[in-house]
Amino acid sequence: MDKLIEECGIVAVAQNRGIEAAQKAFFGLNGLQHRGQQSAGLAICNDEDISCYKDMGFVSEVLDEKILNLLKGSMALGHVKYGPESESLQICAQPLVISYRNGSLAVAFNGALLNGKKLREDMEDNGAIFSTKTDCEVVTSLIAKNDKNNITEAVKTMMDKVKGGYAIGIMTGTAIIGVRDPMGIRPLALGKINDGFALASESCAFDMMEGEFIRDVRPGEILLIENNEITSIDIKSDTKSALCSFEYVYFARPDSTIDGLNVYNVREMAGKTLAVENPVKADIVVGVPDAGTPAAIGFSLGSGIPYRPGLIKNKYIGRTFIQPTQSQREIDVRIKLNPIKPMIEGKSVVLVDDSIVRGTTMRQIIASIRGVGAKEVHLRINSPPIRNSCYFGVNTPDINDFIANANTIDGIREELGADSLGFLSIEGLMQSLGGSSYCSGCFSGNYPIEV
Amino acid sequence: MDKLIEECGIVAVAQNRGIEAAQKAFFGLNGLQHRGQQSAGLAICNDEDISCYKDMGFVSEVLDEKILNLLKGSMALGHVKYGPESESLQICAQPLVISYRNGSLAVAFNGALLNGKKLREDMEDNGAIFSTKTDCEVVTSLIAKNDKNNITEAVKTMMDKVKGGYAIGIMTGTAIIGVRDPMGIRPLALGKINDGFALASESCAFDMMEGEFIRDVRPGEILLIENNEITSIDIKSDTKSALCSFEYVYFARPDSTIDGLNVYNVREMAGKTLAVENPVKADIVVGVPDAGTPAAIGFSLGSGIPYRPGLIKNKYIGRTFIQPTQSQREIDVRIKLNPIKPMIEGKSVVLVDDSIVRGTTMRQIIASIRGVGAKEVHLRINSPPIRNSCYFGVNTPDINDFIANANTIDGIREELGADSLGFLSIEGLMQSLGGSSYCSGCFSGNYPIEV
Amino acid sequence: MDKLIEECGIVAVAQNRGIEAAQKAFFGLNGLQHRGQQSAGLAICNDEDISCYKDMGFVSEVLDEKILNLLKGSMALGHVKYGPESESLQICAQPLVISYRNGSLAVAFNGALLNGKKLREDMEDNGAIFSTKTDCEVVTSLIAKNDKNNITEAVKTMMDKVKGGYAIGIMTGTAIIGVRDPMGIRPLALGKINDGFALASESCAFDMMEGEFIRDVRPGEILLIENNEITSIDIKSDTKSALCSFEYVYFARPDSTIDGLNVYNVREMAGKTLAVENPVKADIVVGVPDAGTPAAIGFSLGSGIPYRPGLIKNKYIGRTFIQPTQSQREIDVRIKLNPIKPMIEGKSVVLVDDSIVRGTTMRQIIASIRGVGAKEVHLRINSPPIRNSCYFGVNTPDINDFIANANTIDGIREELGADSLGFLSIEGLMQSLGGSSYCSGCFSGNYPIEV
Amino acid sequence: MDKLIEECGIVAVAQNRGIEAAQKAFFGLNGLQHRGQQSAGLAICNDEDISCYKDMGFVSEVLDEKILNLLKGSMALGHVKYGPESESLQICAQPLVISYRNGSLAVAFNGALLNGKKLREDMEDNGAIFSTKTDCEVVTSLIAKNDKNNITEAVKTMMDKVKGGYAIGIMTGTAIIGVRDPMGIRPLALGKINDGFALASESCAFDMMEGEFIRDVRPGEILLIENNEITSIDIKSDTKSALCSFEYVYFARPDSTIDGLNVYNVREMAGKTLAVENPVKADIVVGVPDAGTPAAIGFSLGSGIPYRPGLIKNKYIGRTFIQPTQSQREIDVRIKLNPIKPMIEGKSVVLVDDSIVRGTTMRQIIASIRGVGAKEVHLRINSPPIRNSCYFGVNTPDINDFIANANTIDGIREELGADSLGFLSIEGLMQSLGGSSYCSGCFSGNYPIEV
Repeated sequence: MDKLIEECGIVAVAQNRGIEAAQKAFFGLNGLQHRGQQSAGLAICNDEDISCYKDMGFVSEVLDEKILNLLKGSMALGHVKYGPESESLQICAQPLVISYRNGSLAVAFNGALLNGKKLREDMEDNGAIFSTKTDCEVVTSLIAKNDKNNITEAVKTMMDKVKGGYAIGIMTGTAIIGVRDPMGIRPLALGKINDGFALASESCAFDMMEGEFIRDVRPGEILLIENNEITSIDIKSDTKSALCSFEYVYFARPDSTIDGLNVYNVREMAGKTLAVENPVKADIVVGVPDAGTPAAIGFSLGSGIPYRPGLIKNKYIGRTFIQPTQSQREIDVRIKLNPIKPMIEGKSVVLVDDSIVRGTTMRQIIASIRGVGAKEVHLRINSPPIRNSCYFGVNTPDINDFIANANTIDGIREELGADSLGFLSIEGLMQSLGGSSYCSGCFSGNYPIEV
Repeated sequence: MDKLIEECGIVAVAQNRGIEAAQKAFFGLNGLQHRGQQSAGLAICNDEDISCYKDMGFVSEVLDEKILNLLKGSMALGHVKYGPESESLQICAQPLVISYRNGSLAVAFNGALLNGKKLREDMEDNGAIFSTKTDCEVVTSLIAKNDKNNITEAVKTMMDKVKGGYAIGIMTGTAIIGVRDPMGIRPLALGKINDGFALASESCAFDMMEGEFIRDVRPGEILLIENNEITSIDIKSDTKSALCSFEYVYFARPDSTIDGLNVYNVREMAGKTLAVENPVKADIVVGVPDAGTPAAIGFSLGSGIPYRPGLIKNKYIGRTFIQPTQSQREIDVRIKLNPIKPMIEGKSVVLVDDSIVRGTTMRQIIASIRGVGAKEVHLRINSPPIRNSCYFGVNTPDINDFIANANTIDGIREELGADSLGFLSIEGLMQSLGGSSYCSGCFSGNYPIEV
Repeated sequence: MDKLIEECGIVAVAQNRGIEAAQKAFFGLNGLQHRGQQSAGLAICNDEDISCYKDMGFVSEVLDEKILNLLKGSMALGHVKYGPESESLQICAQPLVISYRNGSLAVAFNGALLNGKKLREDMEDNGAIFSTKTDCEVVTSLIAKNDKNNITEAVKTMMDKVKGGYAIGIMTGTAIIGVRDPMGIRPLALGKINDGFALASESCAFDMMEGEFIRDVRPGEILLIENNEITSIDIKSDTKSALCSFEYVYFARPDSTIDGLNVYNVREMAGKTLAVENPVKADIVVGVPDAGTPAAIGFSLGSGIPYRPGLIKNKYIGRTFIQPTQSQREIDVRIKLNPIKPMIEGKSVVLVDDSIVRGTTMRQIIASIRGVGAKEVHLRINSPPIRNSCYFGVNTPDINDFIANANTIDGIREELGADSLGFLSIEGLMQSLGGSSYCSGCFSGNYPIEV
Repeated sequence: MDKLIEECGIVAVAQNRGIEAAQKAFFGLNGLQHRGQQSAGLAICNDEDISCYKDMGFVSEVLDEKILNLLKGSMALGHVKYGPESESLQICAQPLVISYRNGSLAVAFNGALLNGKKLREDMEDNGAIFSTKTDCEVVTSLIAKNDKNNITEAVKTMMDKVKGGYAIGIMTGTAIIGVRDPMGIRPLALGKINDGFALASESCAFDMMEGEFIRDVRPGEILLIENNEITSIDIKSDTKSALCSFEYVYFARPDSTIDGLNVYNVREMAGKTLAVENPVKADIVVGVPDAGTPAAIGFSLGSGIPYRPGLIKNKYIGRTFIQPTQSQREIDVRIKLNPIKPMIEGKSVVLVDDSIVRGTTMRQIIASIRGVGAKEVHLRINSPPIRNSCYFGVNTPDINDFIANANTIDGIREELGADSLGFLSIEGLMQSLGGSSYCSGCFSGNYPIEV
């Protein structure tokens, strides 16, 4: 499926006693699998000693029973990742664990730095060496180099130096630290679990850990969990927050609540607005599963046109499905997503999806809906057209690959073969989010930090 | 998940020319993966020579690119299986390929024989030997033994001798044959594909093959595809048809049409009837994904209570997910299915599922919905209580394991922890099916053939 | 390596009590791994109930800890196989387990039938069906069909009907049976193990089972082990025995003793004779490991030229080694077998191997020995030239692929690039075997049974 | 098998043109597989850009066809490793690739530093961070930190700071560098290959690369290969060389030549001396394959007692062999190594092995030889008793685990159950090596550098 790809998910666990933190973190990581399916890793701290296991693959593949049984400790830091091509290597998997003068550190990073390359080169000029090209290693090096026996001061110094959007989980021999960039571009939340606390990119992870969401880590906050106590340092002063709006559009799970808003709710509300902004006369509303379903339900509520789950997803077609030949390329999407003919035949259909990037898949979906006899296909997209790259931790293709790049709405409609096409406006999206303190860079080209 | 388990899916492909029948069948089999995930197999016929590959695993695991490239021929016969414990062996995977005096035969079987054991023992008494205990081998032996250079006569003789519910795909060196038992208990359909014809347990398989549904194989019909021509022999005389109603309740894919009825449609209609039969005052209707979704939408339509997708399924938790310890058993279901708290909190919820077998999972789902603050949980099941074994090809647990066994509705409700509980009546189910020519044995104990 | 390939190894275990027969058989099978690396299988009998596991792969891959723990019983029948291309399928793996009127049978077969195809067709004409094209299934069917509640009589009838060379292990619900063809073409031995008896293709298997060799099964003998007692029926009358001489030349392990002769001893003795028959002046004798080593030591003893292990085998290059490109094809053999330059440089070398089939590898070995500076390379082969197919269970290539086919000794020498070449004569081989009651068909074209 | 374990093997390839250096290095690494079976890795340089793939496993498992096809470049640096427990992690696999101010470096290390921990801590005190605890990372950091645009000067500075035994392969964006410590404790050789040069831990690797041995890298030499030219810097002044004598005793392949001596030759010579030093009257000499074979042949030459290959190794028992139960523990060694009974029965046997560490396996071998009827078993070991740890790159067990620790020769003999026991003296070993410039620390406790 051609979608934008979130690059990472973070889970951290600090329990007051016991050695089962890895298991808690394992459950949490499974709840964040949608944030990264390329590699997974888990670092554990036992008596100030940090060890780590990470590899390419899904959480439940990398962290099998044998491995989990070896990872004993009261604190854990886990990560799932989907990196850009250049980082799709085992060595780039996280958490990154290092040894330095004050002991060991494990670091899990979600986001991107604007000045990461520059900072790395500066440190190299001063004699530093690096194993990877990742921003995670830059952040880790900055913390280690500036740690004069005060880790939170070191984190502060790191935050002074870096520019970008990020959420970071850090594990020392005695503490867990959570950090969000001053604008809160990437999410991170604090939860209560049995015998301790946890951090996670999304609140749904706490549900998997039998825990409860407490609050979001604040933009610019350094949150330290040590000896079962929480200390907070806010370094943010006057900046306006700018959480990534695409978290609500597509990345996050519908059962997560981020910065006060439930993700499902935002999607349904946006779908209602989408219907108001782009009215159409039609017989049924069909969502593209799974991401388009809340939007379609919202559209149905906003328009009064009945919602029908008209596309059936083959739940057995996983990563391993490889087409035996190219000859059936055009049938590809129907293997994964098949329309219910008797529901669609002779109907005028509103097809709703969350977003559109390259449009390749959407063209095939529309063709297959027409193929089973739809009278009309009206496409509605629950977000604005994507025309700009993300610089804050989302894997966007070359802008020339965006179907909306240098293209009119009608041009896009024609390419996709729809009878009509409507996008949610930026204002409509912001209205669904109840404000404007969000990054909408990929839609608007206006970024919260100059790029 | 505790559900009844369909035992098999069949695909057959007969093309007029070319050697790519295996690839067609591969796509079709992927569309039938839900009918059996234990083993998969594909036999191919090239110039009257039959070869076969089968193994434990998913279709796309067993039939990888390398294997498919070896399976060249103009006819193919494929099978997916979920057998009972005693048949969960490689050697029981199908199609079964044999060599006999008139050449080779490949046979793929879906269903069960009442007199399979007896027939096998009779043949053994006459000197026959068997490799497995499967009904498939009994059927195959009967055909082979009675084939006096007329394969359809041999199939007829086999049908005279066996009692049970079945759909069978047979491939000889020159023809494909499809058979349904005289009451049509198990489904089988005929489709048109590029350059030929295909058979499949469900019509959705034709969509995956870029083909089109033509018609169902009739109860008691022997349908022969040879030299791109179709010959039909109806051996059924006066029996009433009795297609398995559970195909509509749970087994079949919503995008399939069986014996004239679209599966999604039946489920939605039943859901409406369920709402009428079991009215309740509530705020929202939530379905248990994926199987409960059409029923929930129907319930919403029937009751006027708004539908909400309040349970989020973790689509990355596959077969391989193994819990590291037993300690978190109770959280198990939330890893797979998590309620959206802000949607459910303080609400009175109608929870809808397609069917209920043991009830173990349902108890956990209800607990998790209450855990996020539901005011009330009203359970509605889109089929009658299951209290009887199936003898026609469905893998049912011991009847003592049915939660409805020797239990009242209120007893079940209490066990599950629901505020109220309603099942669809047998009449309601039949009404949604537009008639009564269906097997409802697992619900009613009335079987179309004496057991 | 281009060698003739033995097709099978058999192990059977009958213990008086306990359920660990599978483990005994597992150790025995590991000792017979050299007789077949394509598939492995083990059938077990517990309380008259036979179950079986078999798959493609090595013994220790197929029969892993998990599988072995499932195979509980006091009797076991195991098999390793390297079949011809047409049988390199899972379904052809052995033992073959069948169900018939008198219960269950497991059969493990080593050898080949001259009239196997004919017998199968006869049975098919009488209505029998077959799952494979293997002689094993023919033998099994004959036994099952003729078993009128007397299994040894049924085996006798089978032996009356079949023509060929074979050793067979049979397991019924209560007994183990070992059979050798009337000429004893394929080997089979009886051993004593803890609490019972065992059968094995070679005596070395008993060493792995902490057991002891008792005696060879006699040509034409049916040996029944039941209730810890041995009953023997000799059906052979006047035929002369004809054990495969290639068992001594190459197939069997040096630590096995077959029909009274230790395999290593025969090879060394033959090597001495080879030296006498083909004298040469040279500095050192080098064997091609592993099979040529005993021959080279024998040659050294016979000629007085010192033996040196001048070719080093890379013991880590296993089945999985695949060359990344074809470009280095000529270096292929050196990856596996590298000459010690300082030992060979400037020397006149006698290179000794056990046998020669296509000669491809040998040509490369000679080139590499010359490449490190050998002055002369004199090739000596410890068996006669192979010019004929085997019909009794050895996988021989097309006779046109034999380097000795329609070729003179000098022609062969030239093709291989040796300075001189000598083969052991048939008489020399027979002399090393202490008699002439051996099949030398592949060398002489004279077979013990008309082919 | 209980043996001392060499920790690493290195291969480097610098070709003048083309992009196939990885394939050359792959063949070379396969020839060094005996030096490390735990992990393997290969870095490649293409147009000054270095990339790397490494993982746990054998060379041919880690570097499969797919991976090799991705590794295109004209220079390559490969490594095989068997690390201590604490380094048996993916992240410790080599080569280590880093990015620093002057570009990228790949480093492959064989050996150990006496002051590695101290150097790491010093650098940490100055703000450096480390990913692993390996000496390789210490060496790499020292080079990177001291590289002021002159890589050989940086290597020199590193050599000034470190104390220990090592051979190092370094790849920059434009050059390959080979280094041996000032005493040449670990081996490294230079070879000529098609279109360029190569470095390898042992000369046998050049044979696998169709290349030729040129000379050993000298103790204390920095050898730079750039633009197809070789530049040498000798930093060694007055130190005496001290190559590890155990390379000849056990580690190296018999077909390698190190510092002017062929390994097979040394072993055979030592065997002769062993016979002279420890005479015995016996019938046959049997070597423990594979390592004891050259020693046994030497013993035979030195004593006049005939050599016989009386122990047969099961070549199919690989890494994957896991015993199903403990019950047959004592038979363990016979699965792997079985005596030829007819050769040994009634004989007085001299059993020869290369070395003895814990003695566990040897005790079992002697028992099995007695078990087949040996009259006497006289054990002769082709090296002195091991009583001391190695500090220069060999994985030695705790000294309390050495059978020779605080034990007399007669005490060892009794523990092993031999009739007599003789070790090669240190003088005898040195004599076979033609001098005394070797490290014999594990035997004598005298190390070339104070430890």
